Amino acid sequence: MVAELIGRLPGPPAGERWAGDDAAVVAVDAGPLLLSVDVAVLGVHADPAVLGLDDLGWRAVAGAISDVAAMGGEVRHLLVAVAGPADTDLDLLYEGVVGAARHHGAAVVGGDLSSSAQLMVSVTVTGCMGAGPRGPLVPVGRDGARPGDELLVTGPLGAAAAGLRLLRAGQPGPGGGATGPVADAVRAHRRPVARLAEGAVACRAGVSAMMDLSDGLGLDASRLAVASGVGLDLRDVPAHPAATPAEALGGGEDYELLMATADPDGLRRAFERAGLPRPLTVGACTADAGTRSLDGGPLPVAGWEHPWD
Amino acid sequence: MVAELIGRLPGPPAGERWAGDDAAVVAVDAGPLLLSVDVAVLGVHADPAVLGLDDLGWRAVAGAISDVAAMGGEVRHLLVAVAGPADTDLDLLYEGVVGAARHHGAAVVGGDLSSSAQLMVSVTVTGCMGAGPRGPLVPVGRDGARPGDELLVTGPLGAAAAGLRLLRAGQPGPGGGATGPVADAVRAHRRPVARLAEGAVACRAGVSAMMDLSDGLGLDASRLAVASGVGLDLRDVPAHPAATPAEALGGGEDYELLMATADPDGLRRAFERAGLPRPLTVGACTADAGTRSLDGGPLPVAGWEHPWD
Repeated sequence: MVAELIGRLPGPPAGERWAGDDAAVVAVDAGPLLLSVDVAVLGVHADPAVLGLDDLGWRAVAGAISDVAAMGGEVRHLLVAVAGPADTDLDLLYEGVVGAARHHGAAVVGGDLSSSAQLMVSVTVTGCMGAGPRGPLVPVGRDGARPGDELLVTGPLGAAAAGLRLLRAGQPGPGGGATGPVADAVRAHRRPVARLAEGAVACRAGVSAMMDLSDGLGLDASRLAVASGVGLDLRDVPAHPAATPAEALGGGEDYELLMATADPDGLRRAFERAGLPRPLTVGACTADAGTRSLDGGPLPVAGWEHPWD
Repeated sequence: MVAELIGRLPGPPAGERWAGDDAAVVAVDAGPLLLSVDVAVLGVHADPAVLGLDDLGWRAVAGAISDVAAMGGEVRHLLVAVAGPADTDLDLLYEGVVGAARHHGAAVVGGDLSSSAQLMVSVTVTGCMGAGPRGPLVPVGRDGARPGDELLVTGPLGAAAAGLRLLRAGQPGPGGGATGPVADAVRAHRRPVARLAEGAVACRAGVSAMMDLSDGLGLDASRLAVASGVGLDLRDVPAHPAATPAEALGGGEDYELLMATADPDGLRRAFERAGLPRPLTVGACTADAGTRSLDGGPLPVAGWEHPWD
């Protein structure tokens, strides 16, 4: 069954085995391998009133791939495990899974299916690092930021949160060609895209720390600060044109990347040379690890808190 | 939180990053990488009336690792994603996860936590192949069996199914030192062990096909036959001393391995040299792909049918 659903994607190259056996067999180069798993639960990570199962599948895959982007890596393989009620429209779910895999250039090589009361998709992703001057590039953690480093993001924030608000208010999903901030925000919520190119350019440019903003800048920047042992001075957080300032600060699932660097000019030039949108400054790291400020005042606690975090 | 729970296990070697960042970073050698994911749902894959959450965690990990054993591989990394109600005893669950990881020599390098109505554990496993005479060994699929190949299993069957029956009848869980068929069967259900050593020896000995008996011999042997395009003539299926013949044929989750080979004597000698229990013959592969026989009569349909298979 898993093999059948995955059969919509191109099959394995010679020497590899994908779905249909006890384990998938893939060929890898020596060096660092990136591994991450993300669980998306219907009703927790996706509002079934405004999203289809295809959206749930897409979002689960994009969210997992974003973890590879946040390390500066290239995505390789996906394993997609689904547990849900027996009447789940798996075809629709896998339409989103396969669409997101194809969009990001990842191969679905295996999975599992089980019954459960609530629909849940677990996506495992593997990634590798591109070639650097001396062997593979070194993955970028969230713990390398230093006092004085500038903090930048790969784009304006809050689009996905605004999209959810607009969908709940009755905004229809965008047609293929719809443009403008509203269509853009709805698309950001339904069909987010991992910033793989941006992460790789930032890695190559030598950023000191990086992570994806899956839970919102307010929370995630604090996590980077804690991991790096620095303070946080956020200023002029750039909001997506459809988003409120609160959505820009607290809205997760944009999958924009947060980067710390001592050489912001060099980073902007690297993005420009790669033809990517100019990264936007959101503040700086401070020496006092206790600092959490926003535009000179205290940083409000905002963002997606996991129940067990 | 994931990092904290996993913190009970030894930390990463130099150059690797495990839980706590967007993705784990592990070092791998060039060659075939094995990947598999298994989902265990409380109430579906584990009866909460007789099993603890530590048992659920152990079983989920052992079941995933068994997929690596079934390819002839060595286990390396685990990613453990949990979704469940907020009052879930995660400490107890992870006690089982960590115990099984340690028992099988696997490293838990990452995971995810989410809330959901029903407790679910998704375990992703990676594995690699040991060294053969000319580079890494070739993973063994379930599709290589040929007519005339003998079919063997790594031990008598039905222990886990018998253990579940005994637990439901009030049999207490075995103490550390309990011995005998009943304690053995209960242990097989609560704390199954993947046959990693057996799988590697079988791979090195050149078996033509292999898989683990996670869903019972009746179903799994049929899957091997379909994948290989052969028929199935089962005879004298060896039952565990605590198991009924029906449990031996239909009981899954024993994680014994099913192997096909044209040289059963060579396979038995290889197991003997490795100090492993002698594999037991359960039948042979036939040329007529439609054959499904048991002791000369028709093979009854028995085993764990997944809802979507």
